[in-house]
Formats: sequence, C-alpha cells, structure tokens
Amino acid sequence: MSKFNARILLEPNKVPKEWVNILPDLPLPITPLINPMDGMPAPPELAFAIFPKECVMQEVSQERTIPIPKELREIYAQTYRPTPLHRAYGLEKDLGIEGDDIKIFYKNESVSTTGSHKPNTALAQAFYAKKEGLKELVTETGAGQWGSALSYGCNLFGLKCVVYMVRASYIQKPGRKILMKAYNGEVHASPSKHTMSGRIFYDKNPEHPGSLGIAISEAVEHSLTRDDARYSLGSVLNFVCLHQTIIGQETKMQLSKVGISEPDIIIGCMGGGSNFSGLALPFMRDKLEGKLPNTQFIGVEPRACPSVTKGEYRWDYGDTAKKAPILKMHTLGHSFIPHPIHAGGLRYHGIAPIISNLINNKLMTSSMHFQTEVIAAGLQFARTEGILPAPETCHAIKEAINQAVLANENNEKKVIVFNFSGHGYFDLLAYKEFMEGNLIDFELPSEEISEALKSSDMPIVDESKF
Amino acid sequence: MSKFNARILLEPNKVPKEWVNILPDLPLPITPLINPMDGMPAPPELAFAIFPKECVMQEVSQERTIPIPKELREIYAQTYRPTPLHRAYGLEKDLGIEGDDIKIFYKNESVSTTGSHKPNTALAQAFYAKKEGLKELVTETGAGQWGSALSYGCNLFGLKCVVYMVRASYIQKPGRKILMKAYNGEVHASPSKHTMSGRIFYDKNPEHPGSLGIAISEAVEHSLTRDDARYSLGSVLNFVCLHQTIIGQETKMQLSKVGISEPDIIIGCMGGGSNFSGLALPFMRDKLEGKLPNTQFIGVEPRACPSVTKGEYRWDYGDTAKKAPILKMHTLGHSFIPHPIHAGGLRYHGIAPIISNLINNKLMTSSMHFQTEVIAAGLQFARTEGILPAPETCHAIKEAINQAVLANENNEKKVIVFNFSGHGYFDLLAYKEFMEGNLIDFELPSEEISEALKSSDMPIVDESKF
Repeated sequence: MSKFNARILLEPNKVPKEWVNILPDLPLPITPLINPMDGMPAPPELAFAIFPKECVMQEVSQERTIPIPKELREIYAQTYRPTPLHRAYGLEKDLGIEGDDIKIFYKNESVSTTGSHKPNTALAQAFYAKKEGLKELVTETGAGQWGSALSYGCNLFGLKCVVYMVRASYIQKPGRKILMKAYNGEVHASPSKHTMSGRIFYDKNPEHPGSLGIAISEAVEHSLTRDDARYSLGSVLNFVCLHQTIIGQETKMQLSKVGISEPDIIIGCMGGGSNFSGLALPFMRDKLEGKLPNTQFIGVEPRACPSVTKGEYRWDYGDTAKKAPILKMHTLGHSFIPHPIHAGGLRYHGIAPIISNLINNKLMTSSMHFQTEVIAAGLQFARTEGILPAPETCHAIKEAINQAVLANENNEKKVIVFNFSGHGYFDLLAYKEFMEGNLIDFELPSEEISEALKSSDMPIVDESKF
Repeated sequence: MSKFNARILLEPNKVPKEWVNILPDLPLPITPLINPMDGMPAPPELAFAIFPKECVMQEVSQERTIPIPKELREIYAQTYRPTPLHRAYGLEKDLGIEGDDIKIFYKNESVSTTGSHKPNTALAQAFYAKKEGLKELVTETGAGQWGSALSYGCNLFGLKCVVYMVRASYIQKPGRKILMKAYNGEVHASPSKHTMSGRIFYDKNPEHPGSLGIAISEAVEHSLTRDDARYSLGSVLNFVCLHQTIIGQETKMQLSKVGISEPDIIIGCMGGGSNFSGLALPFMRDKLEGKLPNTQFIGVEPRACPSVTKGEYRWDYGDTAKKAPILKMHTLGHSFIPHPIHAGGLRYHGIAPIISNLINNKLMTSSMHFQTEVIAAGLQFARTEGILPAPETCHAIKEAINQAVLANENNEKKVIVFNFSGHGYFDLLAYKEFMEGNLIDFELPSEEISEALKSSDMPIVDESKF
C-alpha cells in the first residue's frame, strides 16, 4: 500500500442511503421494551409519549434496511461524513510490525462537529423530532459528549435541548458544559429542583454529586410532563445502534478501495454499545449471511464496569428511578454506581439488547482492560498517529494493540479494524494523571457484582404473558 | 450547487508537490534578516546557528517554487491533508443570504492532528532538523497552539522539543500544557531559571507572569547554547509562510472542483501572518501575474493589537530581549505588551515582512475588530456550521460575515473565502465569558501606540550599508 492511501476518503455523496437494521437477521428475536409500570411490553402510545414516533417505529422495525432521509444525508455530507478510515502505519511501526501481513485500520469519528460518533444519532433524532412537530428534546449526560451532540443537533433543527448533567461532571468538566451552552443547550446539574425525581435528592442535599441513573430519571420525567417534548437517548436502544450503522457501511466501502473485503477482527469500546454496533453491525449482517465466516467481533469494556463480561443477562431497569423502559440485557444492576473512571461514557450498568443478543449467540466476544493500560495505549496512539483519543476510545485501541501484537508473535496475517470513537481534548486530566503516575486502577470484584445485583430490586417480567 | 458538494474534498495524493515562494514575484524585494548584534544582514553562519539550514535557505530563496519532500508529503497525506473546503450554507442562511450570488467558503485547518494550521510548518521544520542530524528544536508558545504542533512534529521525527510557555498561559491553560507533554514535549514556564534571559526576571520573581518577548528570548538563547539544538518559529518568517502555502494551493483546486476560478475576497486573521499567508499567497501570485485583477485580500487583526492597521513600518527586534533577528515590518514596538485578549495567537507586536511588503504595495488591506464582536461571530458560526472556532479564527469569521452582509445589501455577487485556522476546544473560557456578559473589549488608543513605539529602543539599521 502506498502511504498516500493511508487515509482513505469517500466523497460526501457516498454517505450511505440507508441504515442497516440487524433485527430481522438476528438468530433469536430481540426482546421488546417493557413498561416499568406493569412489566408488560410498552404499548405504542406509551413509547410515543417518551420518544419521537419515527424512532419508536425504527426500534421495532423488521425491515432489513431503513432509508436515511435525503435532508439528513445532506447535513451529514455538509458537516463531516463520510469520516476518514486510516491505516495506522505509525502505530504499527511502533509495535514492531513491518510489511503488510498485519494491518491496523481505524475509522475516525473524532472529526465530527462535536468530536465523536454521537452526532450520527443526535442529528437523526432531532430531524425526526422536528418532522413530528415537537419543540424540545430532553436528555441526560455524564461526561458531556452526548449532551454536546444533542445540543448541536437540536440547535440545527431549531429545537430546544435540555440536558441533565450529572452534577459531579457538571462541576469537574466545565468545558463540555460551555460547549453545550454554545450550541444553545440548556444544562442543569442533576439532581436538580426541576423534577420530582431530582428533588428527592436535591432537597436533602443541593450539592448531591448525582448519578447517570438519576439524570436519566429526571430527563424522562421532564419529557413526560410536556406535550411537545420527548426524551432522547444516546445509546443502548435499537434505533440508536441503527443510526450508527453508517460507520460500518462507510468502512466497508473504504476497505474495498484498498482491496480488503474480509477484515479479521472488528473492535469497538462498549458503554451502551452504540459505537461498537455502528462499526460492527454491517459486517455482522454479512457474517449472518455466511459471507464473513472468519471475522471476529470484540467489544471492549473497562474492568471497573464490565456489564457484558461479568454482568448477568436478565430483565433490568434502564435507570435508577425506574422511569425508563425495562430491557433484557447484560447488567450489573440498575442501582450499581461504577467507580469514577475517566471513560465516563462507559459507565453504564447495562448494554444494548442487540449486543446481549449477539453475545448469547456467540457471534461476538467481549474483553476488559484496566484504566492505566488503556490510557497508556491512548498515549502511544497520540504519539504515533497524532490524535489524542478519548478515554473511551482508548479501550478499543488497547484491544487492537493486543490483537496486533499477538498476531505478529504468531506470524499470522490479520486485518484489524477499530472504531476511533472520539478525541480526548476534553479529557486531558486522564492523561495528566497517567503521566504523573497518579492514575488509579480499579477492578470490580465478583462479590461486589453479586452485591450490586442483589441490592438492585429487579423488575419482574413474565415473558409467558406476551 | 448540490448540498453534497458543500464539503469539497481532495484525495490524499493531491497534497501539493511544491510550496509557492512569493519572494521573487514581489514588486519590491523583501528585506533581509538583520543581526541584532551589529545591525547588518545576518551572515549565513549566524542564521544556521539559529535555524535549521534548509529553512534558512528557504528564507532567502528566489526560486518560485520549492519542492515538498516526498516523505513529508506522505506524512501530511497520512494524517490530515488535504483539509476540506466547506461552503458555509448554514451561516449564509443565518445571515439571510439566499441563492448562489454570495458564496462563503472556509478552508478547514481545524481537522489537523493538533487542531490548527500550525503542524503544516511544524512537520516541515522537524523534518529538516532531523535530516540535518539535529537532536532538538526549541520554541516559545503563548496560548499553546504552536507549542502543541511542534511537540507533535518533533515527536514524530524522534527529536526532543523544548517549549518555553508564557507563565500566565502555563497556569491558565493547563490543557495545552498536558497536550504538549502527551507529545513528549518538555514544557517550561517562562521566565524560567534555565536561561540567562529568564533568570533576570525569575530570580526577582519566580511567579513572574512572563511575556511572549521573554519566552522567545529564552528559546533563542537555549538553542544557541546547544550544538545540536535549533530555534523554531511558528510564524512571521518567510519560510514559515512558505510552508503554509499548501493551504491556498489546495483551496484553488477545491474551488475549481465547483467551477470557481476567481474568488472575490480572501480573508485570514493575522498574528504573525502565517495562516493568512498560507491561504492568500498562491492567489496573490496569480494576482501578480495579472490573473486575478479584482480579487481583494484582507488580513484581520484584533483592535487590542493592530500591528499592521495602526503600527509603524520600520526595523524592529523580533523579541523583547533583542536576541532574535531584526526585521523590517509593521510594528507596535518590541516592548509592547498587548492586552490579554483570548486570541493569544494574535498578540504579537510585529508581522511577517511578506505581509508588510504586500500592504506597502497596496496588494492587500487589513481590518480590525473588537473581542466581543469576534466571539459573537464565532458563536454564530458554531451554531450554524457546527465547529467551535478558536478566538483567532473568529476574527476571520467576523470579517467574512461583514463582507457577505455588505455584498448582500448591495446586491453584489461575491465569492468570499476565509481560512478557518483552528478549533476553539482549548479556548472555552472566551465563550463562557461572552455568554455570561463578562467579556471585555479593548481598543489600543493612538497615544498608547506612540508611547509603545517611543519606549521601545529601536534598532539602528543603516540600509545604505548593505
């Protein structure tokens, strides 16, 4: 390969025309969203009161492809899509890999307007909300990556965006808060006094540090109390994973430009599962059609929050206050509060039901890494490839490095592709702590997982009833 | 134009093969670098002791084009070049501009590895330093954009990078410092105890806030006391402007892809002048060849530091401690300390001699804007185009908006092109202060300019002697 092919571009008019819906191809059907009030599948009217209608339709669609509206494709094309696919020559060299037997590629979602893959679905959700005549989208955010993307998307479509931001992050990450406000987002530290779910905590302690679970509850409650507002989620749900499938479709076109049709290993980090899904699902469909028999798929988690690797597969609430729909997924329990690792986007107790489905069908595997080893990998990446990665993204990098080194030791030929989900310009503290030797590792002990699951009062869902 | 043409890309193999050297085409010859010790043109051996040899040769070259080494072009291509050219449809719409009579384009240098145009020359300087067998490059940095780029470039070529960072910024902008260290840069708060120039201030006050002038003196001194180290500058000099001309060459190719061969207005912000030069000089050569008779060129300055618009054209020192070469340029006086506006990259007392030459020959004009109006323009840009601009870049945006609005009022047809020199992810405080109504405006009064010029002990250079 010539070095001039190291960054593989696609013209803006190559933005995919449809999303890949994996649901009809899954070997076992996906489980429905369950109403937290009665443990039964959520009726459409309840789902429509929470999410934009079109998203609800996509959540349960059995169409294999869903067209991307032209107006939305134009916005992707105008702003940042298709994103580049890079051959990681610098990293390969640093790992002692020579020649073309082992090739590492990364799909660079960090070039998006807000610096990650998140606008892919934020723009879609805002587009559908606008089309439905809604006025406002409400969401929660931890580290702020999702809140920035939704604020940006809503602003583009003239919608109000309200973000409940975990108070600890609200105080620790002022940059993300300013960015959201720059996009006209309305940002509240959570728990707040604006919702009943928030006031329970806020009234006792106005300085309460908050949690993602409480923030979700506030956002859902806020949207349910306003006719023209809906709740917006940045990961986990089927329709969110669907919107991200433009990533993998572009990657396939880009790999084919350099003559690669069968990558060996597909890697992404997993919090709620949407960036992994975005890259993986278009390849997964090929695998399900028998086209990629040897391709492996690896989702990467932090050892501090290994929902898939160590969690239990069962029905659980999506949030602490049990206002969001119940999902069947790998979970550490909805009351579990993960250790405050820098990869805030991976601190979710559950996972996308699509991921659980693939795991259960042995179509993919998961791995987990320590915080210090992933930040070390991120630093190595910055020094060799130039872009400073988000702590979440560092998990995928670490796994790609491990796989490449292993293949090199074994004299194997491998094409490794990972999703470079975002840059780390708002996460410099993680690198500072690492370079100063102050970064702390944390592994979730098995006893704590059992304890977390036991102490979460799990929903009772009787599948025989539906 | 279809919206799918709004972001105009070039394949990586289209990275220009040569730089455009404007020197031989200038109507009056460019003035030489002057030795601060004796007021005479710096002999090559002195210049070679300060800068990498190849850069010195380029500084005075009379070749109209200078080839870009293939290895360097490969690195540009692998990492971020060519950068996209965007049609600003979102901004145009927000300004009430409809149809295709007025078109605003921006060249997006923010997608570089360190977020601005600075790596274009950092990579080139590091490449030549490595080729010469040097071990180390030393520089100063204000806000940190240049220090990040040089740390990145040096690290790629296995060189040590030492950065003297103005202490006020060192304390106020910890993010940039961490980024430099992530790229293996060695960062010292300036004034430091590492150089004589620094110790004069440091010994009296270890908390001295520093200035760009002192930091330059420290960096030059540091490089002069080590055989295998050289000084590296991120703007002002001819060879730096030269390295940036890839920007304008790509822009020409991109405009021609949408059928535009004669843009009406070319705009860039000006601190030392390199990003403006990078976009403008390839078009300027066409103008000098009679090809673009009607194209206007506008360099934009802050009202707090209007070196070109309000300064005097004369010989002046490049730094406070008079260690760097003397240049003939528009200047506010080398002892002038600009108001601490957020656009730290525009706080330089002088300007590139190439810019002064063009100004004196009425080939370009300059304009100046207040801090609040440029940040307001930046916020409007972020909300309509998606990317949050650096405060420096906001100056170019403000001018582009003014020109577009004026043309619209006058029912004129105009193609306006500006350089989007960098993103503002490390400059969020400027936006916060603006949104909270706390951003302060500052205009440099004429009396203060006279005073600054008077209090700077200007060098005596007798041009009749050389």
